[in-house]
Amino acid sequence: MVSSPGPDHGTAAKAGITIAQIAALAGVSAATVSKVVNGHAEVAADTRALVEGLLREQGYRRQKKVSRSPLVEVVFHELAGAYPIEVINGVERVAGEHGLTIALTGLHGRHTPGRSWVDGVLTRRPVGVVAVFSGPTPAQYEQLQSRDVPVVLVDPTGEPHHGVPSVSAENWSGGLAATRHLLELGHRRIAVVTGALTMLSGRARLDGYRAAMDAAGVPVDPDLVREGHFQIVDGLVHTRELLRLPDPPTAVVTGNDGEALGVYQAVHEAGLRIPEDLSVVGFDDLPPAQWMIPALTTIRQPLDEMAATATAMLVDLAQGGRLPHRRRILPTELVVRASTAPPRR
Amino acid sequence: MVSSPGPDHGTAAKAGITIAQIAALAGVSAATVSKVVNGHAEVAADTRALVEGLLREQGYRRQKKVSRSPLVEVVFHELAGAYPIEVINGVERVAGEHGLTIALTGLHGRHTPGRSWVDGVLTRRPVGVVAVFSGPTPAQYEQLQSRDVPVVLVDPTGEPHHGVPSVSAENWSGGLAATRHLLELGHRRIAVVTGALTMLSGRARLDGYRAAMDAAGVPVDPDLVREGHFQIVDGLVHTRELLRLPDPPTAVVTGNDGEALGVYQAVHEAGLRIPEDLSVVGFDDLPPAQWMIPALTTIRQPLDEMAATATAMLVDLAQGGRLPHRRRILPTELVVRASTAPPRR
Repeated sequence: MVSSPGPDHGTAAKAGITIAQIAALAGVSAATVSKVVNGHAEVAADTRALVEGLLREQGYRRQKKVSRSPLVEVVFHELAGAYPIEVINGVERVAGEHGLTIALTGLHGRHTPGRSWVDGVLTRRPVGVVAVFSGPTPAQYEQLQSRDVPVVLVDPTGEPHHGVPSVSAENWSGGLAATRHLLELGHRRIAVVTGALTMLSGRARLDGYRAAMDAAGVPVDPDLVREGHFQIVDGLVHTRELLRLPDPPTAVVTGNDGEALGVYQAVHEAGLRIPEDLSVVGFDDLPPAQWMIPALTTIRQPLDEMAATATAMLVDLAQGGRLPHRRRILPTELVVRASTAPPRR
Repeated sequence: MVSSPGPDHGTAAKAGITIAQIAALAGVSAATVSKVVNGHAEVAADTRALVEGLLREQGYRRQKKVSRSPLVEVVFHELAGAYPIEVINGVERVAGEHGLTIALTGLHGRHTPGRSWVDGVLTRRPVGVVAVFSGPTPAQYEQLQSRDVPVVLVDPTGEPHHGVPSVSAENWSGGLAATRHLLELGHRRIAVVTGALTMLSGRARLDGYRAAMDAAGVPVDPDLVREGHFQIVDGLVHTRELLRLPDPPTAVVTGNDGEALGVYQAVHEAGLRIPEDLSVVGFDDLPPAQWMIPALTTIRQPLDEMAATATAMLVDLAQGGRLPHRRRILPTELVVRASTAPPRR
């Protein structure tokens, strides 16, 4: 583990156990163990499993100062929408200062990488891994740690386990600020189209909404709480339904700017107008938000800065440094534009 | 050169000239020449220049079958907007099939990479380079060729020099189809906000516009031809001016979807409506186009397929194959949505 040194997992790590010692325990050659350590593919599956088990059990740690490639791995849940480019630019800013190039992987919607990705990383020997809205499994993380490949999570999907370093935004406060803004404009019938509630950020933003409603003494109508998954279509489908309610909402808080785009579409379909008929608040403040018509009121999440911070943490870890804080939480901020106004009713 | 073998640049290439021979000619050690060949930084600038000069003059070519890293370099003019993600996904699709990872570089608006990028590529020894809306200088290209690093241009900025392989879209036909669509709807006052006219794609799209107007016997009013640079703000600023003309246009053809977004903004500012007051056609059909309100009529440029094609070409070249065609041109296609309608006047 990076910042809580000492025995891991209850098994006292043998100080400096070597590849030769692992080989002797496994009854294989040192060359075979070395291949497993370096992620080479040409080792039989059962041998590999045996060696990986011993590496883990014996607390093997690759010696520091191993030569690293001047690469930063960046792995995304999904390469879609405006979110990844913000993150990439933040990583690149810091990576460039250190002569590092980005090695990019998209997981096509999955939140954990497959074995081939881990093997690839072990072969490439990067300075470290920035995992965005995704992350290695505990076993994968342990494997990367044992080869001295640090990992930092950006926008973690859950509470980071095993003390994995992470950078997130103040999601709960953002949900609170979005909702409070609408309450202050006089709205009471405030709907929410949430992000994915299995994800930390989605859940925290919803809880912020509830907290603001509670603080204002406005009961939450369960009909106005709709579960989405951060997709444009969620905003579209749920808003169509919300607008057909006997007592429709006058405002909607969304899980991200993409969902807000879907809300705009549903309002347009219904022949209504934003903000006159429905106020909308997004989350992220990605560059397209300012070009939406009307321009989107949203919660700014500093993705570029989050990514830059994570990359700087990786560089520190790769140089053998200690992180003053394993978890960094950057503030979110309400950006008021033209999609919110007092309710007409 | 990749697909026109034989003497390059008028100097007959010495068959299989070796590093040792180059070292003897330069009066330096073979190790020094090897460092230059492999892009290592620790060679004095004048020695490096001398060795690079000899490598070029003597037609040095690294032997094939050198070990390559399982990387594809992707270099972008700029990491902004929805365009890069489309390209990255196309590259990744083919790269993934071959176990290759993307190494990503953005040039912050420049169209040619700097020396540090070339040195990085020589050190990383990738399977090859996909250069997007950018490309190496002739000297950089020659340097990469001599180390057996193939390059394929996607959406080339100019006519590819030196027979550099490339993949582009039918830009001229796209400009023609966009304009013809408006003519068929009955428009005659058709403005154009161009892309960057120093770029092949920008120029070809404008020429397609002119060709369609000429074919329809509609004179081009110079007041309606506005030069942009593929930026949202170009659509905004030029449309503000166009709408103030004594005889404003009833339709606008734009250089890309981003410029079309700027047109929408200007029309909204003026209290007018799309398509009732102004029809708009974009170019690219990036994912946001379908979510614009009204949904954007545009010319689809198959960026993902262009990128996948380029990556497949690279893999062929890296395996010592010949390309059946150095230049691939993929068709563009008119996608009619809701931003175009017959003129009211």
